[in-house]
Amino acid sequence: MKAGIINVTGYAGSELARILYRHPEVEVISVTGRSAAGQKLGQVFPHLAALDLDITEELQGNLDIVFSSLPHKASAEAVIPLLKQGIKVVDISADFRLKRAEQYEEWYGVAHPDPSYLEDAVYGLTELHQEEVSAAQLVANPGCFSTSAILALAPAVKLGLIEPDIIIDSKSGVSGAGRGLSMTTHFSEVNENTLAYALGGHRHLPEIAQELSLMTDESLDITFLPHLVPMTRGILSSCYARLRPEQAGEGATASKRVREAYEEFYRDHPFAVVTPQPPQTKQTLGNNQCLIYPTVDHRTGRLIVISCLDNLVKGAAGQAVQNMNLMCQLPQETALESLAVYP
Amino acid sequence: MKAGIINVTGYAGSELARILYRHPEVEVISVTGRSAAGQKLGQVFPHLAALDLDITEELQGNLDIVFSSLPHKASAEAVIPLLKQGIKVVDISADFRLKRAEQYEEWYGVAHPDPSYLEDAVYGLTELHQEEVSAAQLVANPGCFSTSAILALAPAVKLGLIEPDIIIDSKSGVSGAGRGLSMTTHFSEVNENTLAYALGGHRHLPEIAQELSLMTDESLDITFLPHLVPMTRGILSSCYARLRPEQAGEGATASKRVREAYEEFYRDHPFAVVTPQPPQTKQTLGNNQCLIYPTVDHRTGRLIVISCLDNLVKGAAGQAVQNMNLMCQLPQETALESLAVYP
Amino acid sequence: MKAGIINVTGYAGSELARILYRHPEVEVISVTGRSAAGQKLGQVFPHLAALDLDITEELQGNLDIVFSSLPHKASAEAVIPLLKQGIKVVDISADFRLKRAEQYEEWYGVAHPDPSYLEDAVYGLTELHQEEVSAAQLVANPGCFSTSAILALAPAVKLGLIEPDIIIDSKSGVSGAGRGLSMTTHFSEVNENTLAYALGGHRHLPEIAQELSLMTDESLDITFLPHLVPMTRGILSSCYARLRPEQAGEGATASKRVREAYEEFYRDHPFAVVTPQPPQTKQTLGNNQCLIYPTVDHRTGRLIVISCLDNLVKGAAGQAVQNMNLMCQLPQETALESLAVYP
Amino acid sequence: MKAGIINVTGYAGSELARILYRHPEVEVISVTGRSAAGQKLGQVFPHLAALDLDITEELQGNLDIVFSSLPHKASAEAVIPLLKQGIKVVDISADFRLKRAEQYEEWYGVAHPDPSYLEDAVYGLTELHQEEVSAAQLVANPGCFSTSAILALAPAVKLGLIEPDIIIDSKSGVSGAGRGLSMTTHFSEVNENTLAYALGGHRHLPEIAQELSLMTDESLDITFLPHLVPMTRGILSSCYARLRPEQAGEGATASKRVREAYEEFYRDHPFAVVTPQPPQTKQTLGNNQCLIYPTVDHRTGRLIVISCLDNLVKGAAGQAVQNMNLMCQLPQETALESLAVYP
Repeated sequence: MKAGIINVTGYAGSELARILYRHPEVEVISVTGRSAAGQKLGQVFPHLAALDLDITEELQGNLDIVFSSLPHKASAEAVIPLLKQGIKVVDISADFRLKRAEQYEEWYGVAHPDPSYLEDAVYGLTELHQEEVSAAQLVANPGCFSTSAILALAPAVKLGLIEPDIIIDSKSGVSGAGRGLSMTTHFSEVNENTLAYALGGHRHLPEIAQELSLMTDESLDITFLPHLVPMTRGILSSCYARLRPEQAGEGATASKRVREAYEEFYRDHPFAVVTPQPPQTKQTLGNNQCLIYPTVDHRTGRLIVISCLDNLVKGAAGQAVQNMNLMCQLPQETALESLAVYP
Repeated sequence: MKAGIINVTGYAGSELARILYRHPEVEVISVTGRSAAGQKLGQVFPHLAALDLDITEELQGNLDIVFSSLPHKASAEAVIPLLKQGIKVVDISADFRLKRAEQYEEWYGVAHPDPSYLEDAVYGLTELHQEEVSAAQLVANPGCFSTSAILALAPAVKLGLIEPDIIIDSKSGVSGAGRGLSMTTHFSEVNENTLAYALGGHRHLPEIAQELSLMTDESLDITFLPHLVPMTRGILSSCYARLRPEQAGEGATASKRVREAYEEFYRDHPFAVVTPQPPQTKQTLGNNQCLIYPTVDHRTGRLIVISCLDNLVKGAAGQAVQNMNLMCQLPQETALESLAVYP
Repeated sequence: MKAGIINVTGYAGSELARILYRHPEVEVISVTGRSAAGQKLGQVFPHLAALDLDITEELQGNLDIVFSSLPHKASAEAVIPLLKQGIKVVDISADFRLKRAEQYEEWYGVAHPDPSYLEDAVYGLTELHQEEVSAAQLVANPGCFSTSAILALAPAVKLGLIEPDIIIDSKSGVSGAGRGLSMTTHFSEVNENTLAYALGGHRHLPEIAQELSLMTDESLDITFLPHLVPMTRGILSSCYARLRPEQAGEGATASKRVREAYEEFYRDHPFAVVTPQPPQTKQTLGNNQCLIYPTVDHRTGRLIVISCLDNLVKGAAGQAVQNMNLMCQLPQETALESLAVYP
Repeated sequence: MKAGIINVTGYAGSELARILYRHPEVEVISVTGRSAAGQKLGQVFPHLAALDLDITEELQGNLDIVFSSLPHKASAEAVIPLLKQGIKVVDISADFRLKRAEQYEEWYGVAHPDPSYLEDAVYGLTELHQEEVSAAQLVANPGCFSTSAILALAPAVKLGLIEPDIIIDSKSGVSGAGRGLSMTTHFSEVNENTLAYALGGHRHLPEIAQELSLMTDESLDITFLPHLVPMTRGILSSCYARLRPEQAGEGATASKRVREAYEEFYRDHPFAVVTPQPPQTKQTLGNNQCLIYPTVDHRTGRLIVISCLDNLVKGAAGQAVQNMNLMCQLPQETALESLAVYP
C-alpha cells in the first residue's frame, strides 16, 4: 500500500513517518509540509533521513491511504477532496471527532468546513469502535488526552459502576503542544515547572463527553483539567468518581469487581493493558500501549483510575497506524510491536 | 539568637542553613548529622561553605532555638529533652502534627514517643494559627503537600462554600522524597516520567483532614493523591469540590464571590498570595510564597483551586523560619524576602 | 540611588530586577520593554510583582545608573545619549566589549554605532579590571561564556604556566539563549538532548582572546566550542592547555604550584572561588560565584581547569550589579550575598 | 537461536531484552539477576512484560549465545565456564577489552581472572574489527565513551591527518552510570546540573588508547574527560586535535579532504554515519547509530569531531546485538533497524 502524510513537519507527522518506516505492508511515498516544501525529509528531521523523501507542497502519486496532521479546519479542507476520490483517510486533527457541527463551532470557533462528513466519520478509538473503524473510509483520530481519559473511564461508565460525576486530572509532556513555537513551550519557561492550563475548558472535553455518553443513558458531569509537566512525551491521567456500592460492592469486593470488569473489558485489546501496579508514563515511551490501573480509595468509596500513554504514539501517530491497519484489514498490531524505550 | 539544626544533611536541613545565613537576628552555631559527623558543612554541601560550621553528632552551645529535620520518631526523641530545657523547637518531622496519638500510630506504624506534647504543640501553618505560633514553645512544621492543600481549601471550607467532598490531586518535584537514595529518586527512573504513588493513602492526608476539619462542623470526605513529576523543587495541587450555590452563588457571581473570599481570607498574610492568573511552580522557586488561584468550572459548578509552592521553602524550611520568627517576636518575613529565582 | 533597566523583558533584565530588589542602596524606578510596554512588570513576570513597576517604552525619571540588556547595536544606540547626559551605564550587550571596531563589525556583521566610546569603556570582569571599573562611566558587561573561560585561564596565562594553545569546551544551560523563541530553545527539541553549536566560531571568542591576550606577549591560539545541555541555568567550561614544565614544574610539584597560583590570583576576589573539589553548575544556581578548579592531567602534562557559574548571575545580571557597586563606590558584594539554591 | 542474558536487571541487560524481543532469529530463553531472582522479568521491568520470562539465579537451557552485563571481574568469572562449553559470548563488561592483563589490573584494581582469554577475545567495535568479530567466540563489547571517541577519531588517526595529541571531551546522560543507586545519580543532585568527573583518569581511556594506537605507529597523547549532563540517554563527544597541513591540506581543502576521508572510511558501515550537519544526541535515542561530524576550526587549524550515540544502544546493548549478528553470520542490522525516537 502507498501512503501519504499531510503536514509531516509536526510531531504527529514525523512520528507517523517513523512508525510507518517499519511497516511491512505500507510504503510512505509522499509527504507534505508548507514551510519546509522543497527540502528533503532528512534535512528537517535527521532521524528520518533513511526514508529518503522530498517534502512537497501537495501530495503526489497514487495513494491508498492518507494521514493528515494539519491543524483543524485546514485538515478538513485538505482531506475532503481525497475522500471524494475514494482515498482512505485518517485525520489526526479534531475536524471529524465531534458528531455535532454546532459543538465543533462552539469549541473551535469556526464553522465546520463540511458537516455532511460528520455522520460517517468514525471516532478512531479502536478499543471502542473496532468494527466501525474496519469499515470506515474516514477515521477521526482521537485527541491524546481523550484517549487516556476515555480508556480509563469507559468500563466504569459502561457498567454503571460509578456516579455520573467525574474528575479527570491529566498531566502531559510538552510535545503535546506541538512543534510550533510559543512561550509555554520555551525550554527555560517550562523546564522545572508544572502548571495547570485551559482552566476555562479544554477542547478535548467535548469528545471525552461525547464518547463516554455513548455508553450510558445518564447525563455526565465531567471536569477535565490538563497540566503541563516538564518532560517531552507522556500523558498520565488520574480519574476520580464515586463508586455505586449497589453495582460495585464495597471494600475488597469493590476492588475485585472493578479489576475484573476492567480486565474483561479490554481482554481482546492488545494496546489497552490493565496493569497489576500503578503505571508510569515512561513505561509507554515510544510504544502504542495505554496502561490502565483502576483502584478503590476505600476511605471515600471513590474509584481512582490512572492511565498512561505516549501522547505521540497511542495518543496520535500510533493510534493512527492502528486505525489504518484495521481499515486495511491488517492485524492491528502491525508495525506497532515495539516495546517501550526504558529508561 | 543562636540556632541549631538537627540533621542538617537532609534537604530540609540544608535549606534551613541557606535561609538562616541571611537572617539578621539569628546565627546558626551548631549543626548535626549522623553519617557526616566530623566533616565541615561545606564538604557535604559546597554551596554552604560560607557558614564555616562543623557537623557534629550532638548539638553544641547554648541554643535559643532548634530545628529538627530528623525522620519521624527519631525527631520526637531528639527534641523532647530540649523542650524540657526550655529551648524553643520547630520540628519539621511529622511527630507533633497530629493531635491524636492513635492516629499517629495508625499512619506511622509506631507508638508516639510521648503523646503528652501533642496538645501543646502548635500546627505551624502560620496563616491559620498565627497567634498560637507566636506563643508556642513547640511548633510542628506542616508537611509540604499539606501546606499546599490546606491553604488552597481553607477559605472555601471555613466559609462553607463547598460540599464536604474534596479531591486533591498534587504534583511534586523529586526533592520532596528527600536526600536518601531509592529507586524512585534514581535519575534515570524518574526523569522523563510522571507517576502517581501512595494510592493506598499518603501520610499527609490525616493532617490535611485534621486542619480542614477544625474549620467546619461537617464531616469531610477527602481523596488526596500525590504524583511525582520530573523536576527538583515545587508542588502544584489541584483541588476540586462542588460549590454550594446557596453560599457561593452561581455563574459570574460565584466567580466573584469566591475570589473575594480568598483575597479577604489571606489579606494580612504576605506568604499566601491569591494570584490573578493560574500560578506555576517555577514562580515560587526558592521563595516562601504559596500562590493560590481559585476558579469556578461553570460547566459543572465545581470550585477548582490551584496552589503552588516550593516544597523545600514554604513546604519545609522557609515555613520553619517563618514560624521561628513569630515564636521569637520578629517580623514573620525576616530572611524570607527573596523573590523567586526565575527562570 | 535610582536605577533604570532598558529591556527588562529578557532574562538578563528580569534577573537584574530580582537582584536589585534586595539592594539596600538602589531603587529601580524605571523599566522599559518594547512589546510589553504598558503592562505591569508583574503581569509579564509574576515573580517580580513585588516591584510594582510599569513597563514603559522609554526610561523615565532622574536616573543615576542605567543597565541595558538590549541586543547589540540597539543597546549602543540607546545608551550613548545617556552617557552624554553623564549617567552611568552598565551595558550587558556586546557593544562595548571589543576594543577594535573592525573586529566588532567582523563578528556582529554591522558597523559599530560609535567607536569613539570603545576606548573608555571598561570590560567589566571585575576580577581583572577592578580599578578601571571603579572609575568608569561605561562598563561593558562580559559575555557569560567569556566570564567562565577568562576566569578559568587568566592565572595560567598571566603567569606563563601554559603553552599558548588553548581549548575551551563549554556547556551551557538553555537560558543563555535568551527569552526569544527559536527551534533550538523549544522544550521538546532541547530536552533530553546535548549538542555542539557555533562550530564556525562563537561571538564570545574574540572577547576571550582579547582579554587573555592582555596578559601575555605571546600570540594565543584558542579553540572555543559551546554546547547546549538540557538545563535552564549554568555554564561549565572545561579548559585544556599544555603545562610548561619549566614554569609549572612536573608531577606533584605542578599540581601544587598551579593550585597555589590560582588561590593567590583570586585571593581578594570573593566571587572567584578556587574550589577544593571539582565544582558543579548547580552549586552556583542563583548566586554570583564563579567556581574554579585547576588540576593537572599527569599522563599528558596538561592543565585542565573546570569553571562553573550561573549564566544569568555571574554571567550577566549579577556581574552587572557587581560592576555597578564598584562604579558607585559600594562594597562589591552588596545585594549579591545569597547562597546558591541547592538542590 | 537461543540466547541468555546474565544480569538482565541492569540497564544494559534490560536494553538487550528489549532489542532481542524484535529479533527474528533469536529467542531469549533465560535471564539471570541476583537480587531479583524468583521474580518475573515484567515485575522488575513492566515494559518487558511481553517477554514472559522468570529471572533465575543461573542460566538455564541450551544456549547458543550468552550476553553478560555483570560488573567487571564477576563477568569474566561467569562467562569463562560458558566459553569452555563452546558457547558464544558477548561480554558487555570491561573484562576482555584490554589486551594487557597488567593494564587491566592497573585500571580495575584487581588481577584479571584469566588472562589467557585476552588474546583471542575480539574488541567488538564492528566498524574496526568486522572480520575478527565474525569469527570470534568471545567478543568484548566496547565501553560507551570508547565507542563514541574511537569512531570519531579512527579515520583521522589511521590516515595520519592529525598530530598525536588529542583531547576528548565527552558529555554523557546519567543512565551510563547504571541502575545502582548513588548520590551522583540521585535525581535532585544531577537534575539541572552539569559536572566533570574522573579527572584523575577514567577507565575507558586505556581502551580508547589501545584501539587508536593499533592504527598508527606514533605514540598518542590522549586526554579524555567525561562529564555528566542531566538527561537519561546519550553521549556526545567533542574531539580536538591539530591537523597536519602536509596530510590534510589547509583551508577549504582541509575541510573537503577530512570529510571525504571520513565518508570513505565508514562507507560500508550502516551504523557509523557521517552527518551533513552537527549531530545531536537526541537523534540517536533508542537506535544503534553513531553520528559523526568532522569539521575544521580554520582559525587554529584544528580538527574538531563531534560524535553522538545512545549509550545503551550503540554504546552497549545494540552494539552487543550487532556483534552477535556477525558472530552468527546474520546481517549486522538485524533487529537494529529502528529509527531514533524523536523528539
